[in-house]
Amino acid sequence: MKIGVLTIGNELMSGRIADANASFIARKINLQGWSVEAIMSVGDDLASIKNRLDYLLSMTDAVICSGGLGPTADDITTSAIAQAFGLPLYTDENVLTYIKDIFTKFNLCWVENNAKQAMFPQGAEVIPNLRGTAPGFLLPVKKKLIFVIPGVPAEAKIMMTEGVIPALRKHFPQNEQYVTKQTIKTFGLSEAAVDDKLKDIDFDSMGVSVGFYPVFPENHIVLIARQKTPEEAQINLQKAQDEVTARLQEFIFSYGEKTLEEVIAGLLTEKKLTIAVAESCTGGLITNRLTDVSGSSEYLERGLVTYSNAAKISMLGVPAEVIENHGAVSEETARLMAEGVRKIAGTDLGLSSTGIAGPTGGTKEKPAGTVYIALADAKQTICRHYAFRWDRVRNKHVFSETALMMLKNFLQGKG
Amino acid sequence: MKIGVLTIGNELMSGRIADANASFIARKINLQGWSVEAIMSVGDDLASIKNRLDYLLSMTDAVICSGGLGPTADDITTSAIAQAFGLPLYTDENVLTYIKDIFTKFNLCWVENNAKQAMFPQGAEVIPNLRGTAPGFLLPVKKKLIFVIPGVPAEAKIMMTEGVIPALRKHFPQNEQYVTKQTIKTFGLSEAAVDDKLKDIDFDSMGVSVGFYPVFPENHIVLIARQKTPEEAQINLQKAQDEVTARLQEFIFSYGEKTLEEVIAGLLTEKKLTIAVAESCTGGLITNRLTDVSGSSEYLERGLVTYSNAAKISMLGVPAEVIENHGAVSEETARLMAEGVRKIAGTDLGLSSTGIAGPTGGTKEKPAGTVYIALADAKQTICRHYAFRWDRVRNKHVFSETALMMLKNFLQGKG
Repeated sequence: MKIGVLTIGNELMSGRIADANASFIARKINLQGWSVEAIMSVGDDLASIKNRLDYLLSMTDAVICSGGLGPTADDITTSAIAQAFGLPLYTDENVLTYIKDIFTKFNLCWVENNAKQAMFPQGAEVIPNLRGTAPGFLLPVKKKLIFVIPGVPAEAKIMMTEGVIPALRKHFPQNEQYVTKQTIKTFGLSEAAVDDKLKDIDFDSMGVSVGFYPVFPENHIVLIARQKTPEEAQINLQKAQDEVTARLQEFIFSYGEKTLEEVIAGLLTEKKLTIAVAESCTGGLITNRLTDVSGSSEYLERGLVTYSNAAKISMLGVPAEVIENHGAVSEETARLMAEGVRKIAGTDLGLSSTGIAGPTGGTKEKPAGTVYIALADAKQTICRHYAFRWDRVRNKHVFSETALMMLKNFLQGKG
Repeated sequence: MKIGVLTIGNELMSGRIADANASFIARKINLQGWSVEAIMSVGDDLASIKNRLDYLLSMTDAVICSGGLGPTADDITTSAIAQAFGLPLYTDENVLTYIKDIFTKFNLCWVENNAKQAMFPQGAEVIPNLRGTAPGFLLPVKKKLIFVIPGVPAEAKIMMTEGVIPALRKHFPQNEQYVTKQTIKTFGLSEAAVDDKLKDIDFDSMGVSVGFYPVFPENHIVLIARQKTPEEAQINLQKAQDEVTARLQEFIFSYGEKTLEEVIAGLLTEKKLTIAVAESCTGGLITNRLTDVSGSSEYLERGLVTYSNAAKISMLGVPAEVIENHGAVSEETARLMAEGVRKIAGTDLGLSSTGIAGPTGGTKEKPAGTVYIALADAKQTICRHYAFRWDRVRNKHVFSETALMMLKNFLQGKG
């Protein structure tokens, strides 16, 4: 089944706000195994709404409209749809009573405009709004369905789940299909390289579709299996996931929605290990990310942003000669930072970064984007060198991601 | 002039990600005094892209397409547009060399797919991409213009400003109008409160339009003056800005695009002051934000994330009794943290945070969202207490913003 989405409001056309509804409506539709054919936004203008609706109906089985149901003069969705199909408007007395009751209950001032929200095109079926005053409706026209729900995201969400989806299922029973999906998050390969590594997998024969979503600096892969039964879908999804895993193993950090810091939180907690961080070029970002997880005080003891050489020397015990001879940005310094912070914090692990975020501060030998990352435990210290090429903020981000990935691999015994 | 916007990508149709580009493209267009006639999203499908493009071109002077320029097989925007207008593709050798250079320079693995990004429909003019490998292009067809820019927001933004807008001005000179704008960034008031404080200003009589843009946790106000001459526009804009300033003074931290941390960087540099930070609940975020500014090593000496009580005691010299008697989250601890980090770092200023980011760890007296922020110099220590009510990550963000705002006010003698 093909669905069109039409979001309505001048605030969308001016760019005043980003469209929050289209994406969750699309997500809900896709989860049913139906597909979204087109998404459009249009201003609060009678002729334009009619025009866009005609266009969308020409290529879909149903159109879901959101927005323009408020009481003010610029909210014209209902009348636009009535006019588009030459239908008169009627007042639903039950809805009118319901709205008036809300006003009385909350001691709000009734203005006649509010009665507009109880008006519907002839033939429409009301979709109740449990969160606000404006109900939605569905209107069957020419063997197709038009749905109208409010633009307020909290109201629209609940009406999609409780009103629109059940009505679509009822009207188009032949389209039922079971859909299951899996997100696989990777870091360390470009989007093109991920694509290249997976290109020999015959996803089609498994009935699985694959999508690539770069979320800097990560690349997420989404597998979607559509089958007649949940069991078939699950088997095929697992088959596809195994194929992807075989090719991308060392780059995968999460199956599902967990962030890298959440995966690390789970590993540190499971292994009952504590950690301290010593940062230079990442400026606190590694520690900040680790503390984005609730409960991080269980394993994170402290984080030191030793930005100056003096701080590296006095707080971490890095000898001044090492910095003089090898530089603050060097493998030697990185190792001593990781070992130093582990020692003074009394933790199981010490993680460090030292590098040049840029755009200034680079040299020919160590250009902006250079970073050394070290991880120390009681037995050993591992240190790696990387070179990136982003702007300052993205360099910091990719440095922190690299450090966390190194930590994750170590915790999984792949260090 | 009427503009259409077409965002392209299966991830938009599946609802996997919300469309981040349509709203800022619309905003840029509106800032020029042009109007957005329709916004559409479409999947990576040849026939659908062609169909939507035809529809949009039928009602506009130019269409701006975003997305589908990546190197992978599902990125087909360029070929879809070439096919739609029966144009062959050509390889731009300069672009190809530029892309290959990036791969060589950063030691990336070249796969033949990447050459796709140097291909353009005949007659297209390349729009350079200074942030990534995929350039965009503009294609004149039937006295109208089609623009294509990447879907990556950071790249799309800079190409809109530096490529698309200048090209539109050049091709449609009759639409020129002098537009000048000013962004005023505030923190500390809700959007409704900002709106309420400004509601008596008669912006219309000044020929100025005003927009409100919440960028959590900040609220940005954009004033736009449109006049026949630059002088008139400038005078009116200044008048509007003065009125806004008179009403919001203490909440404003930036006139223009500078971030709060950039404003602070300017003040610290100008006053030749150094700073060190001691963080607990913000987990490194304050230090991370300060180090997002290039050259921050001139004034930021170190940042300590003293997450455990032991770290607060051993590194900052907070007496164990103070933590025992008043708690780690208390005015006393916050003051001693700020004073302690200032002393050990030998800096002019010490800034600290201690609080409960949540969702766990709160008590009846000190619920999640509680924070104490202190700022110490040689003469005094100021400390303030705040209570917020967001989720963990947003609490951390608003805590850090509050701390930086306090620092900014202090540096401007408004402490």
